[in-house]
Amino acid sequence: MKLLEERIRRDGIVRDGDVLKVDSFLNHQMDVALFNEMGREFERLFHGCGVNKILTIEASGIGVACVTAQYFGCPVVFAKKSKTKNLAPDVWTSKVYSFTHDRVYDIIVSRAFLGPEDRVLLLDDFLANGEALKGLIDIVDQSGAALVGAAICVEKAFQPGGDKLRSEGIRVESLARIKSMSAENGIEFC
Amino acid sequence: MKLLEERIRRDGIVRDGDVLKVDSFLNHQMDVALFNEMGREFERLFHGCGVNKILTIEASGIGVACVTAQYFGCPVVFAKKSKTKNLAPDVWTSKVYSFTHDRVYDIIVSRAFLGPEDRVLLLDDFLANGEALKGLIDIVDQSGAALVGAAICVEKAFQPGGDKLRSEGIRVESLARIKSMSAENGIEFC
Repeated sequence: MKLLEERIRRDGIVRDGDVLKVDSFLNHQMDVALFNEMGREFERLFHGCGVNKILTIEASGIGVACVTAQYFGCPVVFAKKSKTKNLAPDVWTSKVYSFTHDRVYDIIVSRAFLGPEDRVLLLDDFLANGEALKGLIDIVDQSGAALVGAAICVEKAFQPGGDKLRSEGIRVESLARIKSMSAENGIEFC
Repeated sequence: MKLLEERIRRDGIVRDGDVLKVDSFLNHQMDVALFNEMGREFERLFHGCGVNKILTIEASGIGVACVTAQYFGCPVVFAKKSKTKNLAPDVWTSKVYSFTHDRVYDIIVSRAFLGPEDRVLLLDDFLANGEALKGLIDIVDQSGAALVGAAICVEKAFQPGGDKLRSEGIRVESLARIKSMSAENGIEFC
């Protein structure tokens, strides 16, 4: 998506350790007009797929998910990162490894809000190693819902998450796919 | 706001300890069509106030904030709950006491995204004791931005937060104000 690529090129900041800061428009300050264009594009990509629920994960995916859901006419559910050791019996749960924080955390979704009647579109702001998406897919599988695919704002295509999921037969659509990036040479898209 | 009151009456669940569960439409599963009506109403209430930024706090305020921001034509910034002890020098920060978890946590907002040029509307899903809002107000004050007011989805008016903030001269607009609630007698609005 040209609009997002241009915005990343203009306002994204590349840091050491494959870090791309896009917090001026995507995941701290949020440009809702841009989110609208992204939501429209996600709907175009997944048009006619019968999506009736968007599943994301707190916190930074929630904003784009809600704006996007307007184009699908469906609700959003966000998986919570659980801080408690004792999980309620009425939740779907999975474990997610965070490379950023080098630790495993539990994510939970209430069973009341995901079940066999749902056709689920996953949505997240970033895809790198794919750990968060793996956890969400595990939860969709447990619930008996149908997985339509994954809608991603920014994919670090030089990391293995996206291609691994695609090789497993999951439809992954990323609005911006970064082939390579460095502070010296800038950002190259696929 | 009639629509929200009716929804709370229909789908809200009152639990012991003044807990109101509205996670089927507000803060776990999110009814984006309802958010749109709420956003439209917030804009009506704060029309002409020159709001150019909406400030919320992760995680459950983000969805309503983003949908509402469409009516104001402005970006959203969300305060992050910091897990690290070492705060970066380029952030505004405050402390928030959580009654739910009985602990104090730091909230942070990048200085780049809040300053004297901003006219800020705070937005959150719940207002009870007002601790989160107090932290956000502290951050707005530090930044030199102008505080327009606070837009709240559900206020527990039997708890002191809302009235305390109003007595300090802060404009607080809540779409649903709960006067009392109990599992036996249901919910009464102001």
